[in-house]
Amino acid sequence: MTRSALVTGACGFIGRHVARRLADEGWHVTGLGHGLWVRESWQQWGIADWHAASVTLETLVAHAGKPDLIVHCAGSGSVGFSMTNPYQDFERTVGTISAVLEYVRVDTPQTRVVYPSSAGVYGAVARLPIREGDPLAPVSLYGVHKRIVEELCAAYAHQYELPVALVRLFSVYGNGLRKQLLWEASEKIARDERQFFGSGAELRDWLHVEDAARLLVRAADHASGRCPIVNGGFGVGVSVRELLTELFARSGRDDEPLFSGRPRSGDPHGYVADIALARAWGWQPTIHWRDGLRDYAAWYRNRSSC
Amino acid sequence: MTRSALVTGACGFIGRHVARRLADEGWHVTGLGHGLWVRESWQQWGIADWHAASVTLETLVAHAGKPDLIVHCAGSGSVGFSMTNPYQDFERTVGTISAVLEYVRVDTPQTRVVYPSSAGVYGAVARLPIREGDPLAPVSLYGVHKRIVEELCAAYAHQYELPVALVRLFSVYGNGLRKQLLWEASEKIARDERQFFGSGAELRDWLHVEDAARLLVRAADHASGRCPIVNGGFGVGVSVRELLTELFARSGRDDEPLFSGRPRSGDPHGYVADIALARAWGWQPTIHWRDGLRDYAAWYRNRSSC
Repeated sequence: MTRSALVTGACGFIGRHVARRLADEGWHVTGLGHGLWVRESWQQWGIADWHAASVTLETLVAHAGKPDLIVHCAGSGSVGFSMTNPYQDFERTVGTISAVLEYVRVDTPQTRVVYPSSAGVYGAVARLPIREGDPLAPVSLYGVHKRIVEELCAAYAHQYELPVALVRLFSVYGNGLRKQLLWEASEKIARDERQFFGSGAELRDWLHVEDAARLLVRAADHASGRCPIVNGGFGVGVSVRELLTELFARSGRDDEPLFSGRPRSGDPHGYVADIALARAWGWQPTIHWRDGLRDYAAWYRNRSSC
Repeated sequence: MTRSALVTGACGFIGRHVARRLADEGWHVTGLGHGLWVRESWQQWGIADWHAASVTLETLVAHAGKPDLIVHCAGSGSVGFSMTNPYQDFERTVGTISAVLEYVRVDTPQTRVVYPSSAGVYGAVARLPIREGDPLAPVSLYGVHKRIVEELCAAYAHQYELPVALVRLFSVYGNGLRKQLLWEASEKIARDERQFFGSGAELRDWLHVEDAARLLVRAADHASGRCPIVNGGFGVGVSVRELLTELFARSGRDDEPLFSGRPRSGDPHGYVADIALARAWGWQPTIHWRDGLRDYAAWYRNRSSC
């Protein structure tokens, strides 16, 4: 029998890749969230039914159809936005998961829930690589809200025996991503600029969105009332300088990025994931950052402007 | 110049005592929240303006009037309710503080915010007395939601330099309280019952509501971007057996309570506050539990039935 999944935020960067991956594995995928999509676009991402609506108890009851799985990709995805619009960020991130958990508790307690959390919950970390049991000290409102989501997920899972799993994603990227460092850097490169915030020494762990989507789908198998948490990264730290120098080269620039030395507010110094727990689920990342970056630079060059 | 305060949930047990205390200290007090009050009732509690409405951004903008102080007493106050109605408990507890913090951030960043949190955030504790820096491991949804409120308060305070202070109240009681252990026990005693859940050995730290109200008002002086947290208790652990035995005697019963030995879900074994930090603010509890209990038993006997 075909298994059914609801992907919230399915029009978003991670959401659409999760939908595609589920469809490729034979799931019937329903999408719910914001975004102006035409039918061909969402069908191309493997979505059989798309509902353009906010994620609320009412829209879940109306459209979710008691699926076997919910991957809750809806929510804010920007540290900067969370700082300037903390209330909206809270509503999008915390408000939506509270509706999902309540919907599952009341209407469909067998439904598995997978949530893409963020390395942002760790905040300023004391040692690398980061393990899931390390202290959580989020810096930005984005990180605080993600941590609150984790707490709600764990509470519902423990208290009501709902099957939930959390994946703390590190720096997810890939073709089509039109925000965050790689996008902003590509835009600067196109404008012939070379100045960047920070020291360039900040470490990030780059996970290709297709690897991330595979991990989120895999997490469904491990969802339980214990609410397991795994890191989702490649397990390799790449400095911003190394990354951008490579992006400059891939973009046909023969100069190098310059760094201001001034850190950006809310930017922690180093993020590298210990991915032993995710590996223990039989998952492993497959796309090395240099390969993914080459593809991204080519995608950026050839992208349509809309 | 008269200072102005908004008390949310001012019709509630703690809220009305906070309003009364503020009025006694010369503040102009506005009340906002649910509850069917006639004018004489809220004026009796020191409230100059009462607005019967949910606490939302819209009602705050409409009614709060950029006060010098907000004491946010609105929110759910029942562990049992939080377990059976987690979504409503979340909305009342977490949803309302997010509106208060956003209102203050955007409209009136000089306003001090005081929040009555709960010892429930500590959950199952390892040692007594409990200090504010001890680990937080809330058991019930009530405790999880209170902890989430604390995290939001701290994040807003730190990020936007808003003056906030948190008081973790232990077992607050006093005349007029028509819920929780003392009320339920009084009802049982009146029905000539004597059977109670638990072992009777559970320790609780009983703080009279007038002492609690004084501490919440005092906390306003210490609200800052560092978001200080203090315990609010008497600093003395009283076993449930000792408490109820005394209540039986004060209620004219010549027998004693019996305990099932079975713990109630979500009930931690022992809660006793270390109150050194609150004392360092110049506050101290004044009403011993035996005195408060004698008054409570007399109030229960003579209460009006409505």
